[in-house]
Amino acid sequence: MHLTAVVAHPDDADIFCGGTLAKHADRGDDVTIVYMTRGEYGGFDTTEAEVAATREDEAMAAAETLGAEATFLDFQDGRVTYSLENRLTLVETLRELRPDVVLTHYSDDMHPDHRTTSRLVTDAYYMCSLPLLETDAEPWEPQNVYYFGKPTSSFEPETYIDVTEFHSTKEEAILEHESQVEWLEEHGGIDAEFDGLIEGIRAESRVLGRTRGVEYAEGFVPLHQSADDYLA
Amino acid sequence: MHLTAVVAHPDDADIFCGGTLAKHADRGDDVTIVYMTRGEYGGFDTTEAEVAATREDEAMAAAETLGAEATFLDFQDGRVTYSLENRLTLVETLRELRPDVVLTHYSDDMHPDHRTTSRLVTDAYYMCSLPLLETDAEPWEPQNVYYFGKPTSSFEPETYIDVTEFHSTKEEAILEHESQVEWLEEHGGIDAEFDGLIEGIRAESRVLGRTRGVEYAEGFVPLHQSADDYLA
Amino acid sequence: MHLTAVVAHPDDADIFCGGTLAKHADRGDDVTIVYMTRGEYGGFDTTEAEVAATREDEAMAAAETLGAEATFLDFQDGRVTYSLENRLTLVETLRELRPDVVLTHYSDDMHPDHRTTSRLVTDAYYMCSLPLLETDAEPWEPQNVYYFGKPTSSFEPETYIDVTEFHSTKEEAILEHESQVEWLEEHGGIDAEFDGLIEGIRAESRVLGRTRGVEYAEGFVPLHQSADDYLA
Amino acid sequence: MHLTAVVAHPDDADIFCGGTLAKHADRGDDVTIVYMTRGEYGGFDTTEAEVAATREDEAMAAAETLGAEATFLDFQDGRVTYSLENRLTLVETLRELRPDVVLTHYSDDMHPDHRTTSRLVTDAYYMCSLPLLETDAEPWEPQNVYYFGKPTSSFEPETYIDVTEFHSTKEEAILEHESQVEWLEEHGGIDAEFDGLIEGIRAESRVLGRTRGVEYAEGFVPLHQSADDYLA
Amino acid sequence: MHLTAVVAHPDDADIFCGGTLAKHADRGDDVTIVYMTRGEYGGFDTTEAEVAATREDEAMAAAETLGAEATFLDFQDGRVTYSLENRLTLVETLRELRPDVVLTHYSDDMHPDHRTTSRLVTDAYYMCSLPLLETDAEPWEPQNVYYFGKPTSSFEPETYIDVTEFHSTKEEAILEHESQVEWLEEHGGIDAEFDGLIEGIRAESRVLGRTRGVEYAEGFVPLHQSADDYLA
Amino acid sequence: MHLTAVVAHPDDADIFCGGTLAKHADRGDDVTIVYMTRGEYGGFDTTEAEVAATREDEAMAAAETLGAEATFLDFQDGRVTYSLENRLTLVETLRELRPDVVLTHYSDDMHPDHRTTSRLVTDAYYMCSLPLLETDAEPWEPQNVYYFGKPTSSFEPETYIDVTEFHSTKEEAILEHESQVEWLEEHGGIDAEFDGLIEGIRAESRVLGRTRGVEYAEGFVPLHQSADDYLA
Repeated sequence: MHLTAVVAHPDDADIFCGGTLAKHADRGDDVTIVYMTRGEYGGFDTTEAEVAATREDEAMAAAETLGAEATFLDFQDGRVTYSLENRLTLVETLRELRPDVVLTHYSDDMHPDHRTTSRLVTDAYYMCSLPLLETDAEPWEPQNVYYFGKPTSSFEPETYIDVTEFHSTKEEAILEHESQVEWLEEHGGIDAEFDGLIEGIRAESRVLGRTRGVEYAEGFVPLHQSADDYLA
Repeated sequence: MHLTAVVAHPDDADIFCGGTLAKHADRGDDVTIVYMTRGEYGGFDTTEAEVAATREDEAMAAAETLGAEATFLDFQDGRVTYSLENRLTLVETLRELRPDVVLTHYSDDMHPDHRTTSRLVTDAYYMCSLPLLETDAEPWEPQNVYYFGKPTSSFEPETYIDVTEFHSTKEEAILEHESQVEWLEEHGGIDAEFDGLIEGIRAESRVLGRTRGVEYAEGFVPLHQSADDYLA
Repeated sequence: MHLTAVVAHPDDADIFCGGTLAKHADRGDDVTIVYMTRGEYGGFDTTEAEVAATREDEAMAAAETLGAEATFLDFQDGRVTYSLENRLTLVETLRELRPDVVLTHYSDDMHPDHRTTSRLVTDAYYMCSLPLLETDAEPWEPQNVYYFGKPTSSFEPETYIDVTEFHSTKEEAILEHESQVEWLEEHGGIDAEFDGLIEGIRAESRVLGRTRGVEYAEGFVPLHQSADDYLA
Repeated sequence: MHLTAVVAHPDDADIFCGGTLAKHADRGDDVTIVYMTRGEYGGFDTTEAEVAATREDEAMAAAETLGAEATFLDFQDGRVTYSLENRLTLVETLRELRPDVVLTHYSDDMHPDHRTTSRLVTDAYYMCSLPLLETDAEPWEPQNVYYFGKPTSSFEPETYIDVTEFHSTKEEAILEHESQVEWLEEHGGIDAEFDGLIEGIRAESRVLGRTRGVEYAEGFVPLHQSADDYLA
Repeated sequence: MHLTAVVAHPDDADIFCGGTLAKHADRGDDVTIVYMTRGEYGGFDTTEAEVAATREDEAMAAAETLGAEATFLDFQDGRVTYSLENRLTLVETLRELRPDVVLTHYSDDMHPDHRTTSRLVTDAYYMCSLPLLETDAEPWEPQNVYYFGKPTSSFEPETYIDVTEFHSTKEEAILEHESQVEWLEEHGGIDAEFDGLIEGIRAESRVLGRTRGVEYAEGFVPLHQSADDYLA
Repeated sequence: MHLTAVVAHPDDADIFCGGTLAKHADRGDDVTIVYMTRGEYGGFDTTEAEVAATREDEAMAAAETLGAEATFLDFQDGRVTYSLENRLTLVETLRELRPDVVLTHYSDDMHPDHRTTSRLVTDAYYMCSLPLLETDAEPWEPQNVYYFGKPTSSFEPETYIDVTEFHSTKEEAILEHESQVEWLEEHGGIDAEFDGLIEGIRAESRVLGRTRGVEYAEGFVPLHQSADDYLA
């Protein structure tokens, strides 16, 4: 099986679905993380290019920690727009990667890049199997899309994945984004959830896990309700 | 009374509100179906132009079955975009057709063309009565918009129309889209609801009907709650 | 595995979860149906005792059709009350039957017997494992409770069971309640859903099935979300 | 047509559905108000018997203002309980009055008498048509139940009745409960909604009316969704 | 100010609102915990009386840790019933204690004692200020009721209290219920949330806290929305 | 403290949050109203330029009545689009004004300008503190965004502001939009809520107020739930 997570920024995959990706990689599935941007707005006293370079390195280390391949789409941080052209880029990406399952942001997320990524991926899912929509790659039809999101939005998980044995891997992967720890401590006031990043995320996984009778869990909303069993 | 249904693809009107349109046509109301696109992505081993020609014919036969006029707006399948220009096209369309009631897709529909059509029609409804928004046609103000949608989305009908006597007409109209039956059987796996099309739709109408004590019903969400009585 | 369905009236098990019970019986699981009452109010031009006798026979034939054991608790139709004494009866029932999974009515059901049965079974589930609550039978702890309900209430299924191969068995079981077909045709006006019983229920199973990509499904809400996999 | 409102306390009918009752009485329909209690806890420096006598007189004057008959069931204020015996009293009441439509409290109301009245009336609605449930009066089956409630609870109206021409009658009827104006001013702090009673209720009717494009409206939730047209 | 928490079992106050109680006690407010039962079903290889004695001691130690008074109402664990008599006991309790604010269980809690306690306290709140409802104590009217509940139910907090500085006190109080740690480890399988009790509760407080930008929070739903500021 | 309301049209601030703005101005806070457009479609028998001039004057008089500064952003009425460029305009506006709290439209509003304004302001809030997003003004981070909306949409207030003492000021401010009274009477049929403008708005404030135990209130949904106390 091949899982592809499409995320707006370098640390989104680790934070939102790192345990699930690590679990599937550990089972021998192919796992790819597609980074829409390099998160190049996430810094200060520097340039976007420098931030991009640093965060690309961190993303690749994090992906490796999870056992995933990393791919970068070259959109610009904070400037991902909803257009037919960008949708086609995602169609082409899905056709090239040929994932069975796609994971991405939930559409009702306040961050504009998260929202737009969610929308573009969903549209691409609907479009990528159409034979008359010709691109360089052959049509491909993933089985389902799973959305991840923040507990502070309207996101309510319907599918829970037990990641108890992979939470330490998830935490390691998050910690690879070293430049962001400093940045989030300085700048994170905009969003309460960035204080005590690892420890706060662990609490969230724990609360999700408790509702399932396991230690740690991650939660998802599937696009199609029929395919509960693609994620394990 | 004049009802206008604005739909993204040739078979959407029949599937989502065919019974209601047939019922109103049978009462002597004017009924128009506005097709945003000709659904030209809905085929394989052929060209968009050929699919478009076939589906336009099927749409016209289906509209005739329902007792409705057919109008095509020349947008492209899978590429309907949300722009001021496209909104103006819809404003002009509503001003020319002068419908009392507009029916269209529910905004929370996963298909991008359905979503954009819903948004454009709603915006046009708000704009088309403004005297200072000058177009070729005179300002016009429809009484209300009614949205239709899939039971698998967040769509929850608030207005139910008894279509018991018109369900066979609805089914006939759907069957006019002959090219799509083959296409949906081949390609419909993307969306569970296309297997056993007629029989599945009949089950949906039946379940809606049961909640009202009738045999078959179609469901809608009105934009303004005040006008429950425009649809009968 | 042992499944126990606790239902208020003789035909409730077949209507609400007959496919799931037949499926598990077919897999070799033990299946028991506990009838709170014999539905002795469901008749006219006769006596409660006669209706009770007829419906008990019908229930036993229906249970046999599904491959289930039948047990009667001797509560009175339309008069099931919420009391500590009745809760204890259910505790004792669960301790004697020792089910792994319990199925029963959803609490937000308009019928008073359905509501009370739901409440009593849920309370019994919480109580029956307590060692200090001594009854004739030993404490027992079921793994989970699954609720079934009508699509016309606030009931929204979270767990869907594919019953495609067992829908004809479900229909056969429903048809064993011969006396109720006549009764519901005469009296069913109180609740729209009893016209065209079999065919209406088939439409509901079909609509649930479509959301999962199968032909027919039944839907449940689990008490604990952790145990999705007890029902198959 | 015959409408029957079953209310817990003397002023509940006027406050929650007085405009609708007056409108139907004005159309020539029979309208009955069944008072579960005489609201005899609603006073101070006096006795329950004295309050009951005063409020019975006020209720009868208010009912007359609306054009309705008044019936008292002799339950005790603040002590209406949910029992089979009390349910039977309601069954007998509905069978004697033979209403086409019943109006009563919404079940999710914080006041215990309102909740219990709602539950008893709903149960009686399900039971009163059963031939084998024998009481002094003949079985009877109302067409539907409509629930009314406070905007501060989870109550969300689905059926709106235009009472513009009957709001002054509603206000007159409320003012007949003279003893309660003083009482509510002294004691109403428990519930914010009793300050400026008439003027606050008028604001609520106005806000409901605005959503329908009329001046004043009252809102209801029907038990069966099929019968929208019993109330006018 | 005087806060009174009414809880079904000895450890409920500490688990659900211990931080808030400790915070108010620390501010100099009077804090009382009313225990409906002594939780005497919460044990094995012993008697109800022995469990009751042990848990009463633990409750008193926990209350002292929080800075609260402890009162026991002598209802029986697992057997709290909804009756006029029990409601009167709560009326009398509130009149004697004269709290400004009452905290209790949320009504949509699966545990029958929690549900019944919630209902009885709410009813008592509505009744205890009525002058004509005579009991030994004088009428009294609390300002508001705040409900607490489990994140696994439909409970959604509307009022959040920052308990960062009092979470260690809360944890200490929970640990006073020594007999329950063993019991929950043996028996807690019925409800996933009892594994790793302290650490799981800390995760919940942390997740609630994050949504407010603080370290730890507890959440409540107020009966009246007007009184947000009684809890601090 | 500095509050900035960003509204699509000249009368939106007064109608949706005029009482809150007046209250804060009265407390000595700085209050700015940013008008996206001059509402130049809101007229007939005239030109957009004339309507714009009239409505700018009216807006300035209304802002003065509330005690607020007025700023105009020169977007076009009915044509506010969602683009990176427009988002940057809002980023620059927030950086120049440096508000502590931003008030704007709720995103689920049917009017396209209201929706787009809501989206642009929310995005700008997320972007305006980023140091690497360089504009003429320095980065700035508001504390929170509060959304206002119509009771006829899905908008459900979570924060209520008591505006009892400022409702007459709010009404005065609304009445400054003299040209709109005539316009809305002629054209307002598109939306039921414009008949009896002042009196209808007063009813809404009254109904909101009643739920809080005050005479008049305005309601908001905060972006971050943590900052309940920025509005008073």
